[in-house]
Amino acid sequence: MTKRVQEILSYYQSDAPGIRANLARLLMSGRLGGTGRLVILPVDQGFEHGPARSFAPNPPGYNPHYHFQLGIEAGCNAYAAPLGFLEAGAAEFAGQIPLILKLNNSDSLYGDDDPNQAVTGSVDDALRLGCCAVGYTIYPGSAYSQEMYENLREIALEARSVGLAVVVWSYPRGGTLSKAGQTGIDVACYAAQIAAQLGAHIIKVKVPTDHIEQAEAKKVYEAEKIPISTPTDRIRHVVQSAFDGRRIVIFSGGAKGEDQKIFDEARAIRDGGGFGSIIGRNSFQRSKPEALKFLETVMKIYSGEIA
Amino acid sequence: MTKRVQEILSYYQSDAPGIRANLARLLMSGRLGGTGRLVILPVDQGFEHGPARSFAPNPPGYNPHYHFQLGIEAGCNAYAAPLGFLEAGAAEFAGQIPLILKLNNSDSLYGDDDPNQAVTGSVDDALRLGCCAVGYTIYPGSAYSQEMYENLREIALEARSVGLAVVVWSYPRGGTLSKAGQTGIDVACYAAQIAAQLGAHIIKVKVPTDHIEQAEAKKVYEAEKIPISTPTDRIRHVVQSAFDGRRIVIFSGGAKGEDQKIFDEARAIRDGGGFGSIIGRNSFQRSKPEALKFLETVMKIYSGEIA
Amino acid sequence: MTKRVQEILSYYQSDAPGIRANLARLLMSGRLGGTGRLVILPVDQGFEHGPARSFAPNPPGYNPHYHFQLGIEAGCNAYAAPLGFLEAGAAEFAGQIPLILKLNNSDSLYGDDDPNQAVTGSVDDALRLGCCAVGYTIYPGSAYSQEMYENLREIALEARSVGLAVVVWSYPRGGTLSKAGQTGIDVACYAAQIAAQLGAHIIKVKVPTDHIEQAEAKKVYEAEKIPISTPTDRIRHVVQSAFDGRRIVIFSGGAKGEDQKIFDEARAIRDGGGFGSIIGRNSFQRSKPEALKFLETVMKIYSGEIA
Amino acid sequence: MTKRVQEILSYYQSDAPGIRANLARLLMSGRLGGTGRLVILPVDQGFEHGPARSFAPNPPGYNPHYHFQLGIEAGCNAYAAPLGFLEAGAAEFAGQIPLILKLNNSDSLYGDDDPNQAVTGSVDDALRLGCCAVGYTIYPGSAYSQEMYENLREIALEARSVGLAVVVWSYPRGGTLSKAGQTGIDVACYAAQIAAQLGAHIIKVKVPTDHIEQAEAKKVYEAEKIPISTPTDRIRHVVQSAFDGRRIVIFSGGAKGEDQKIFDEARAIRDGGGFGSIIGRNSFQRSKPEALKFLETVMKIYSGEIA
Amino acid sequence: MTKRVQEILSYYQSDAPGIRANLARLLMSGRLGGTGRLVILPVDQGFEHGPARSFAPNPPGYNPHYHFQLGIEAGCNAYAAPLGFLEAGAAEFAGQIPLILKLNNSDSLYGDDDPNQAVTGSVDDALRLGCCAVGYTIYPGSAYSQEMYENLREIALEARSVGLAVVVWSYPRGGTLSKAGQTGIDVACYAAQIAAQLGAHIIKVKVPTDHIEQAEAKKVYEAEKIPISTPTDRIRHVVQSAFDGRRIVIFSGGAKGEDQKIFDEARAIRDGGGFGSIIGRNSFQRSKPEALKFLETVMKIYSGEIA
Repeated sequence: MTKRVQEILSYYQSDAPGIRANLARLLMSGRLGGTGRLVILPVDQGFEHGPARSFAPNPPGYNPHYHFQLGIEAGCNAYAAPLGFLEAGAAEFAGQIPLILKLNNSDSLYGDDDPNQAVTGSVDDALRLGCCAVGYTIYPGSAYSQEMYENLREIALEARSVGLAVVVWSYPRGGTLSKAGQTGIDVACYAAQIAAQLGAHIIKVKVPTDHIEQAEAKKVYEAEKIPISTPTDRIRHVVQSAFDGRRIVIFSGGAKGEDQKIFDEARAIRDGGGFGSIIGRNSFQRSKPEALKFLETVMKIYSGEIA
Repeated sequence: MTKRVQEILSYYQSDAPGIRANLARLLMSGRLGGTGRLVILPVDQGFEHGPARSFAPNPPGYNPHYHFQLGIEAGCNAYAAPLGFLEAGAAEFAGQIPLILKLNNSDSLYGDDDPNQAVTGSVDDALRLGCCAVGYTIYPGSAYSQEMYENLREIALEARSVGLAVVVWSYPRGGTLSKAGQTGIDVACYAAQIAAQLGAHIIKVKVPTDHIEQAEAKKVYEAEKIPISTPTDRIRHVVQSAFDGRRIVIFSGGAKGEDQKIFDEARAIRDGGGFGSIIGRNSFQRSKPEALKFLETVMKIYSGEIA
Repeated sequence: MTKRVQEILSYYQSDAPGIRANLARLLMSGRLGGTGRLVILPVDQGFEHGPARSFAPNPPGYNPHYHFQLGIEAGCNAYAAPLGFLEAGAAEFAGQIPLILKLNNSDSLYGDDDPNQAVTGSVDDALRLGCCAVGYTIYPGSAYSQEMYENLREIALEARSVGLAVVVWSYPRGGTLSKAGQTGIDVACYAAQIAAQLGAHIIKVKVPTDHIEQAEAKKVYEAEKIPISTPTDRIRHVVQSAFDGRRIVIFSGGAKGEDQKIFDEARAIRDGGGFGSIIGRNSFQRSKPEALKFLETVMKIYSGEIA
Repeated sequence: MTKRVQEILSYYQSDAPGIRANLARLLMSGRLGGTGRLVILPVDQGFEHGPARSFAPNPPGYNPHYHFQLGIEAGCNAYAAPLGFLEAGAAEFAGQIPLILKLNNSDSLYGDDDPNQAVTGSVDDALRLGCCAVGYTIYPGSAYSQEMYENLREIALEARSVGLAVVVWSYPRGGTLSKAGQTGIDVACYAAQIAAQLGAHIIKVKVPTDHIEQAEAKKVYEAEKIPISTPTDRIRHVVQSAFDGRRIVIFSGGAKGEDQKIFDEARAIRDGGGFGSIIGRNSFQRSKPEALKFLETVMKIYSGEIA
Repeated sequence: MTKRVQEILSYYQSDAPGIRANLARLLMSGRLGGTGRLVILPVDQGFEHGPARSFAPNPPGYNPHYHFQLGIEAGCNAYAAPLGFLEAGAAEFAGQIPLILKLNNSDSLYGDDDPNQAVTGSVDDALRLGCCAVGYTIYPGSAYSQEMYENLREIALEARSVGLAVVVWSYPRGGTLSKAGQTGIDVACYAAQIAAQLGAHIIKVKVPTDHIEQAEAKKVYEAEKIPISTPTDRIRHVVQSAFDGRRIVIFSGGAKGEDQKIFDEARAIRDGGGFGSIIGRNSFQRSKPEALKFLETVMKIYSGEIA
């Protein structure tokens, strides 16, 4: 185990050895193993957006085995998906890549101004499928946020009791938040803080903009001259907001976009002290050779092989 | 056991042997046993529409024994019904046909724009009645959909823990869905995907039309030129949407209609890679001799005895 | 045990011996014991309508012992009441008459357009009081109907697990149902079917009229020419709707009315294949001698001693 | 034990010996011990109305020990209070006076037209504090009434299982009830009946007026000429409504008023067959010497030492 | 142990030895150990207001270790924080300062006129982190108040069963309360009383003003001439309202203000019989040397070293 990984594990001393062992599995797997950086492959778009919108651009992705194979061949640190997708391959690919069971999900057939997610999996499912962590989404700002925090608390307590790590997707949404506010720097930092306070081992937030949503926060940003003008500044501020670097924070890749944009974000994440990326649609919505090449570039940025 | 059944069972390797044994019972029973195709007899109309609307056209159907006998004589793979109907014959016909206990139901005395179902049976009931599977309906699109997914998760976890297979009726309904949208191809595929992601072993959806409901989906269907013009195309796309054929997908027969329409649908299901049909009203709302003849024809289409 | 009782018990073969033993206790007790007919004394009016409206017409009824004595002396098959009334006499009259604990109740101090009932007793209470069955009311048609079905499911499962029979009061009410519709023949039959599908051992419905409430049902009644013109026809149709006579269906006596009307209804119930009556206010709201004479006449109609 | 107490205990034969032993403790304690009459000291006003409104008129009442001492010195049968007040003296005064833990409470900082109470204590609390009974308020007529009945059912079942008696405060309130209706004779009797049917061992209602609230009830009161013109008549009718005297019914003293009014009410309770009083504010909102004298007079009325 | 601490512990005689031992740990730790006074460091602002608003004024506060160090170096009696912050240092600083796990929290991304908090931690978490107490906020006056009381009851019962002390933040808010009313003397006293009745071992309220919110209370304050004109009077009245000094009542420091104001409040708390302060933002939103000096002054006021 590398010194950096040991250092990161030292942030989780209050946790049982089993949990730290699972965090170590995540940090020591794949191409970036040992660097303290992570690139995770998440595939919940089938549930979130429907199968055609998710997989028609690259039809092999309809098959659940494809994503296991992609994650393994690309050398990702882990593969995260809902119950069905993991069940459909956990036996065949057992032990080849760390798995994260995404425990709640929402679909886009039903919509509510204040979004919520259904709990679709359980800690027991994660155990029987051999996962090293469970994932859970919260929507700070939504009228359902407190309910989601409470569900998370119960799930996290149960996960901890059996040695599973807890990954929290913290996506501000709903209530009085503006569209811009969902990725505003103050809101993104707040989202990271909430996830950390709720006991997340790993926190996933979106790459923030320099928009400031909340008037009370704006005063402080101005008074204290908090640097947020460059992407690297903003990443650093998010990491600071997640216990000053003592919690693993990773950033989502968002919708399929230009590769250069993703590479630039990866550089900002790397330079700002972020721990890595979780990249779904940009990975599995292109052919496998292209995806492998794309992910290799991202990982080389994180490892420093590319500046 | 045939090679095709072995192949299908191999899709469920993450599941315990007891569950695969029950799937095998379903796949090896009746006239279609071993072909990898299923025709299931479901009788929940008494609950859903009331007794007269369900059974007056063929009054022997008031008697719960009738449906066991019909299923057995026709060589169906299984008989699915709510608690009361199964209780009223499970002892007399024990071991003669695989049983599926439908665990939730709704009646038409009360209506809500956003439909829901009451949980009317339990896994314990299924065990004491000797069932090989439980059935559960979800309504993607309804305001109650997340609640239904969560109930399903709990029931499915419990069913799995005792070796019962989980059959999910996935019927989009409610919310902003148009009437046409409920059977639109994008929505039907989405419904199949959701059921699969929720961990269903067997998925029941309606035969889809070529209507596309969601604007975001429409863009993808056009951009990717997904073939949906013929019934066979659409069945193939639904099966693809259910983990690329790695989950058993069957199709409901709908209201009583012309036989030729049902036979044509069966051909499309067969040729599109679907796993079979679940046919209620078209079976029990005619005299037994007629029903047996009708079902024989359907099964011969699936077995290939009829082109 | 008579052949008729053995035949009735044979309808419940899927149930454990303890439940069948309790059904036998009900069917073999009292003046009608062995005939396959039942007359049950229910006294929940104190809760439903208040004490004065219930007992002032015959003040000994304020005393809980009175109803035990009335049921015993009249030779009723069972006495059904809420927790308090049973507790207040179960020890004194232990073993002298089968008891049914009514597990949910509502009062008329609070009203809601969509009615519901509170669960006021438990299976554990029924056991400690030596009951042979529990009773539960559902209101098909009410916005609370699904919740009531779910509560019933849990209670019925628990009752079954300890050998208690389940009696369901199925009273359509609320939602879009018209007043006439509550006792319409289509609705009454639907109510009986729902209770049967929910797993009731004994079903209590109201004596139906020839009104047809639901348009969809009306079409079928007309197309299939279902006979509903005489009271006997309607009773026969209700019994048919409860699994073609394979579930015990009894009919409630309703508000205090003219004796002749009750006697005529009993004849229709008898001739239409109904299993008996549950008669409250017509029994306990008159002096005991009068009540005994009245009940004797009803029972003689059921036994055939009176034509 | 006196014959009267033995007679009262005989009303509770269906209950376990432990419960009857606790009822005996209540009936055999204090100055009225053995008479079959009770005077109970309740102090929940701190929670219900706030500390200043409750205790400023007699500041020693801020101290929880004061009420234990008052109850003991006055020879009350029991002291009833919420969790905090009992915890703050249960150890110091262990065994000196029977205790009743009031399990639900409401405050006047928040108001709802349909009132409810929060469950603030548990049966386990009552056991560890050495109580002989638990107390629970229901609000018949409120939109929350069914919820309250269901909570009571669960609590009562648990209390019974460990031998604790159940005291129910039955206060009609909310919904369509008029202010006058809350203490109307028909409503008070109905409140007593509901509590009795819910399984209360001891029922607390307010002293009723001759107002009749419900039209349906009014018809019966007039038709049956139920005597309700004098306070004694009304008490007798309430006692009759609580299982004809077979359940202990006590009456609340209400707000601080003129002593003579309380004494007259006590005479009516005594002469009408009531079992006693529960007197809070009239006891602890005056100096201790005055309170002792006041309570002594009340008790002498009950014992018959004063006519 | 000092006599004063022994005296305070004697107020909790109904509690198990383990709880009293934990109260003793709180009272005997830090610079004020043994005086019967407490100064507690709470840091939940990261959750309540977001990270920048909380920690940007003194950036080392982003790091969870900072607050442990601050509490230890300042000689606080305890450090209170949500799950995440305690987890991030409980191992490193084990045994160096008593910990209080704050079990519920709310954020300011979502707002409701009637506020509520999410339960974000559990008694099991408190145990594994080595805490001596749990903290819980209630909002008397809010539409959610009864729900919060019920959650508190369950948590407090569980905490008690494992020997943890219960600290209740009682903050009137919501419903019909005016802004001024939230800190009105009548409301503050009522808030203290409610917390005490709910079984709190330690009660935290805000320093009250002389505003009287409730009309019914105003009458009593005037009739009984309750002294509330000086800060010391008001503190004394709050302490009286919390069982006449038999429950530990501490006061929150509120938003960052002028030091002199805090010192004056500490004097009033000391002289009015209050047990101490809980000071967050005034402690951690300045540099550590300044904070240490500031807290030293506050503690010297409590110890009497400064008049």
